[in-house]
Amino acid sequence: MKVGNMSIIDKYTTTFGLVKKIDAFGYLDYLKQNPDQPRKHGKVLLVTADTPLKASRGEGKTTTTIALVDALRERGVDAAAVLRQPSMGITAAGSKGGASGGGKSSLSHPELIDWGLCGEMAAIACAQNLLVSFAEKAVDEGVLDTILVPRVSEVPSRSLRSIAVDYGKGTVPERVVLTPTCELMQIVVLSRSMDEISERVASMIAGTKDGVPRKFGDFVDLWRITNILSDAVKPAKTETINGSPIYVHCGPFANVSLGIPSLVSVEMACAEHDVVVVEAGYGTDAGAQKWLDIASREFGAKWPAAAVVVTRATTWRDDETLAWRYPFHVSRLESLNIPTFPLINLWEGEDDQVPELLAQAKSLGFRKPIVGNLFRDGGDGLADQLDDFVSVISEDTKAYAPESRRGNTLMNRIKLLCEEAYGVPADRVIEKDGFADSLSAAQDLCANAGVDFNSLALVAVKSPATMTDDDHKPAGERTVTLKKVEVHAGAGVVQVNLTASLTTPMPKIV
Amino acid sequence: MKVGNMSIIDKYTTTFGLVKKIDAFGYLDYLKQNPDQPRKHGKVLLVTADTPLKASRGEGKTTTTIALVDALRERGVDAAAVLRQPSMGITAAGSKGGASGGGKSSLSHPELIDWGLCGEMAAIACAQNLLVSFAEKAVDEGVLDTILVPRVSEVPSRSLRSIAVDYGKGTVPERVVLTPTCELMQIVVLSRSMDEISERVASMIAGTKDGVPRKFGDFVDLWRITNILSDAVKPAKTETINGSPIYVHCGPFANVSLGIPSLVSVEMACAEHDVVVVEAGYGTDAGAQKWLDIASREFGAKWPAAAVVVTRATTWRDDETLAWRYPFHVSRLESLNIPTFPLINLWEGEDDQVPELLAQAKSLGFRKPIVGNLFRDGGDGLADQLDDFVSVISEDTKAYAPESRRGNTLMNRIKLLCEEAYGVPADRVIEKDGFADSLSAAQDLCANAGVDFNSLALVAVKSPATMTDDDHKPAGERTVTLKKVEVHAGAGVVQVNLTASLTTPMPKIV
Repeated sequence: MKVGNMSIIDKYTTTFGLVKKIDAFGYLDYLKQNPDQPRKHGKVLLVTADTPLKASRGEGKTTTTIALVDALRERGVDAAAVLRQPSMGITAAGSKGGASGGGKSSLSHPELIDWGLCGEMAAIACAQNLLVSFAEKAVDEGVLDTILVPRVSEVPSRSLRSIAVDYGKGTVPERVVLTPTCELMQIVVLSRSMDEISERVASMIAGTKDGVPRKFGDFVDLWRITNILSDAVKPAKTETINGSPIYVHCGPFANVSLGIPSLVSVEMACAEHDVVVVEAGYGTDAGAQKWLDIASREFGAKWPAAAVVVTRATTWRDDETLAWRYPFHVSRLESLNIPTFPLINLWEGEDDQVPELLAQAKSLGFRKPIVGNLFRDGGDGLADQLDDFVSVISEDTKAYAPESRRGNTLMNRIKLLCEEAYGVPADRVIEKDGFADSLSAAQDLCANAGVDFNSLALVAVKSPATMTDDDHKPAGERTVTLKKVEVHAGAGVVQVNLTASLTTPMPKIV
Repeated sequence: MKVGNMSIIDKYTTTFGLVKKIDAFGYLDYLKQNPDQPRKHGKVLLVTADTPLKASRGEGKTTTTIALVDALRERGVDAAAVLRQPSMGITAAGSKGGASGGGKSSLSHPELIDWGLCGEMAAIACAQNLLVSFAEKAVDEGVLDTILVPRVSEVPSRSLRSIAVDYGKGTVPERVVLTPTCELMQIVVLSRSMDEISERVASMIAGTKDGVPRKFGDFVDLWRITNILSDAVKPAKTETINGSPIYVHCGPFANVSLGIPSLVSVEMACAEHDVVVVEAGYGTDAGAQKWLDIASREFGAKWPAAAVVVTRATTWRDDETLAWRYPFHVSRLESLNIPTFPLINLWEGEDDQVPELLAQAKSLGFRKPIVGNLFRDGGDGLADQLDDFVSVISEDTKAYAPESRRGNTLMNRIKLLCEEAYGVPADRVIEKDGFADSLSAAQDLCANAGVDFNSLALVAVKSPATMTDDDHKPAGERTVTLKKVEVHAGAGVVQVNLTASLTTPMPKIV
């Protein structure tokens, strides 16, 4: 893989201030065109988490991811991690801390990751808003009479959930969603080339004219969008304070969208390293569910060779009525034949709880948990607990490729999801008033647009902190209520809002 | 200025992809702290233009700026240029070509300059929108009851001129302006340190509570804003296809805002080069007026040692009723003791017009015009015409510092501006219905906010293509109508809308 003193990937790498940006499309294409060139075939390790008690309170997934990669490298494993880029708007508004680790489990330049990186999210916002501007021009020119694509904002603002534009004249109702949740972000996450991005943007349903769907490809020059995205599609590379390689690409919020790093960022990392730790949160019911059922099952991403499910002592145990969630997640992943390691991330003053936590884990039949105060101790707190973990990921296993569920009806797939990911059986999946109408409207829209509705991958949209309508209820009484359906034909997904989801993903500053 | 093989400025320079970014605040502070360190004392040459026939049709200012700096360097003059960053939204929407020159007068990477550079504009947009989000939170918490700061959008969208947020509940009318025109952009243009940015943001009037103005400093953590801006405040450095140094920083639209490069980008360039060509458009009545009366007169920027006024043969001559504008601009600058060189930028097929254009210029008493097809010939088309120009800028002249006009009443200053920049005497400056109310509301707002109204620098807001209510009328009948007054207390300016200005700077895609 080395050419003189330079590895191939360096030719696709440029410096952007204190980070690097890598032309992953170009590099992966090079590898495809040159099958004899050496490359690694890294395994994916999923770091996911317990369902958080609230959205603003993390379990420490990023901290764990960083500590884990540092610890693995300390043990001689060529490991790297792929993180999602945090939403600058949410960080800047103070609604949530950054997502760049902390303490000894930190990135070398957390301020860059938390505060907008190289403008990737802003470019995506600009491109999605430009699409809406062109849709608006199409309305002026009689090409459209309704616009179905929301504008986006990088900063949260409660009042943008519902706006009217051209107020006092046309007074057209619109909504504004947070940038990471928009269809264009999904397209960047899922696409493997700029041409694919272009095709997917062309397939986005812009709106309707006399009830007939119209796509952006009908009236927007696609190069305008791809020009805006030219640097945004390149994953960033940075490192931990211990020098471990970290890739960062694409947005968060697996509760309301995909919320996983771009597929190419993980594929590129797998070509460069033996082990690639992929962060997939919020909880297992959001981030891991999406990696497994969307990225792996429907879009060809690697199935994880192992998983780590992070929790905090307080999350897991303090509310007895919610204590079922953590073991549920661990068991679910094990049931998928993914060796799953509980990891308990301790806060200051919790060290004395370790024996009790280990006993509880044992009684639940878990693998032996990895336990540490990762903020305080970093990878050093983990390195000597990783024997089983390293042993599992060193096994020479055959790559597992899950079967696609496309083609099944959406309702069947929703019911399967509720059963598998939330533990709610089909007969307790409830349709809210209006859901059936929303579903048939989405089906009609697709039929009229020439899109095969059942070929769209299912994206559950929900609150990050709940799996069911009321997680406090006993298992036999938990329900999931389906609320509405939204098609993202360009991304190739259909979103279903359920339980306590926000109708429009645009939080209030808290 | 060299330390080993490295000049001091290199220590403040980082690579961002194909351009460099320079920490101008840090570098200029270093020079201030180290008065014995060598530095240059470059002269400022203003490149400005005739008033364009319409906003979307440039005379070729950027092309001229690039050709001029290439030609000067060809003659052995250490010249550089400072350009404004084009509005990506306007370029992407196709409403206007980019602003990175063309043909042989091009930048090495025009696509970067035209398509978002390093995210500077997007960061400013995000920061300004975050301020609005915090204002909204302040409303929720009873700290404000009105918000006076507009949201911004990087892409144009006609329907955003007037929106209602929280639609269907609060239904609060708001407006959205194009990013380059916002107060925060003005603050970045005018500030000489991050502390100054912080102080100016703190002084921005967020809104009112029971009629009393409240400033952002009262309720927003300023580090949130400065963190977002940390890379955006750094000018970018690139080069022409001939290798001449080009700095790019801050936004366009001198018709509706400042529309000049940041003061520090020009100061930094002057410390590095003998001659610094500064682009100041649209026309002389917008860009040059703002450089002279705002940057130089009120904020300590260098008075130009010479000026070039660009026109096209067609702009200057084809509409007889508008033909007064070009000689007016040239004469006005000469009357300020700025040696002013007409420059006629030829389009294809216009070469045969040269003798006639020269004759006409002579009859008007101009200096001998510089004439060339700069797209086709680049700096080579200019180099041998620059003897007089180089001679003027080589003179050892005393720096001129114009007297501030702060302290005079706004009305007096408006009338002086109309006379000087548009040729309309005080008795033909008309107040539209509502103007007096708008003026006294602005005065009251300042009085209640503890801001000295008459200390604010005057920013004229108008159409780029007109200087008066009807430029086609004979000189003795031309009027200027004053429409409304808007205070930007943080930037330290007061904006006055006049003639055919848009009420909200948010164009429609055309």
